[in-house]
Amino acid sequence: MNRYRAVLAYDGTAYRGFQRLTDDRPSIQGAVEAALSRIAGNPIAVTAAGRTDAGVHATGQVIAFDMAWRHSEHELLRALNANLPMDIAAQRLESAAPDFHPRYAASSRAYEYRVYEAPVRVPVLDRLAWHSRAALDMARMNEAAALLVGAHDLASFGTPPLGERGTTRRRVIAAGWHEAAPLFGMRMLVFCIEADAFLYRMVRTIVGTLVEVGQGRLSIQDFDEAFRACDRTRIKFLAPAHGLTLVEVKYERETPAGV
Amino acid sequence: MNRYRAVLAYDGTAYRGFQRLTDDRPSIQGAVEAALSRIAGNPIAVTAAGRTDAGVHATGQVIAFDMAWRHSEHELLRALNANLPMDIAAQRLESAAPDFHPRYAASSRAYEYRVYEAPVRVPVLDRLAWHSRAALDMARMNEAAALLVGAHDLASFGTPPLGERGTTRRRVIAAGWHEAAPLFGMRMLVFCIEADAFLYRMVRTIVGTLVEVGQGRLSIQDFDEAFRACDRTRIKFLAPAHGLTLVEVKYERETPAGV
Repeated sequence: MNRYRAVLAYDGTAYRGFQRLTDDRPSIQGAVEAALSRIAGNPIAVTAAGRTDAGVHATGQVIAFDMAWRHSEHELLRALNANLPMDIAAQRLESAAPDFHPRYAASSRAYEYRVYEAPVRVPVLDRLAWHSRAALDMARMNEAAALLVGAHDLASFGTPPLGERGTTRRRVIAAGWHEAAPLFGMRMLVFCIEADAFLYRMVRTIVGTLVEVGQGRLSIQDFDEAFRACDRTRIKFLAPAHGLTLVEVKYERETPAGV
Repeated sequence: MNRYRAVLAYDGTAYRGFQRLTDDRPSIQGAVEAALSRIAGNPIAVTAAGRTDAGVHATGQVIAFDMAWRHSEHELLRALNANLPMDIAAQRLESAAPDFHPRYAASSRAYEYRVYEAPVRVPVLDRLAWHSRAALDMARMNEAAALLVGAHDLASFGTPPLGERGTTRRRVIAAGWHEAAPLFGMRMLVFCIEADAFLYRMVRTIVGTLVEVGQGRLSIQDFDEAFRACDRTRIKFLAPAHGLTLVEVKYERETPAGV
């Protein structure tokens, strides 16, 4: 039995989220476990770095699983991709230390959120970005976003994931907007945020609130006060899932495999 | 009864193409006609500039229809978008001359085709771009694409649309590749082509053949010879529909409305 670690990319549109639950709605976890179990001929369970929510995408989700496999890692990667549905693709696969846990070993996660400006929705962009009819003031949004960087109680923006320790304190390593190249002629803004860990719906709540700032409906002082209040009931803004992508999970603290 | 002209954007993934046929598969035309008929209270038929194929997207499809409507064009645009499914959105709507025909009046059409380079597919990009595992030599692809510009018999790359005059001669106004900004870290190349009109599957056949050139499996001379042969059976390459978008229809020859 070997332990493997893989990087997954997926389009989350058709899924109820990463996590397999008892209901019948399709999950990323369920699809990956079904593919690996078909290859192994026996049930395989996977664990992941982050439980992405329904409709959220990934280009850098990290999973781990144990499997008896006599061939190369490259062949396992090919077999996995041949058995996955088209909206999930393993990008890389390698051996991991027997005790590697993708969630507990992670030192940080990075998400991207895309917003495009257009008078009317452009449906081909709706799969990966949120539509803003109003122009967004990126300098104002960045002034507010900068307040998030550092170790803070982020209770205003999210709740602890179910079944985890109850602290809402997180360390935000970086948070800011940049302007990407236009897509189909539409202005495209990208919010990048890296933190040691995230609360439930934290990125989408932050983006929903920052877009209010960018559209001029919320002042930077209002943003700061709502943030410092550490009160989840004060902020009602929630950006939709389809603009959000888990892009990277970092493992700076981990012991190299085999050491 | 007034004649209206509207610009449509859509994600073509869920549709059998623009054209409504007698089978039950959903079409863009069927969805737009259903929305307009619901607003009007009587059946409305639409005509379009281009019959995009199954899975092909648009940001600049042009349609026209006749309708008795007592309110403003802005209100009709809002009513139309409120009645369309989420994957179709009217971008603009205005009055048109009573004899305006979006196909016959068009002077040219422009399409974009996107290809991204990545070792493995990135599913969230698959909705709007084709995956190339191999690196693409853009200079070589542009050398081949330049051969297409001008008035030519393009029989090697497509067949006349059903029910239209049988000529395969078309005037290609521009054809070339450029490198767009990376998306999720992946290199993204865009092919832009403008012509007076297009043959059935012409852009996808040209792109499929140019990508063979860009990946080094076909020489520029091979491309040129296959092109000059004017023989549809010689070229078997067909790029998938999901990378293709109709971006603009131009009406330079038309008489301004009301003149």
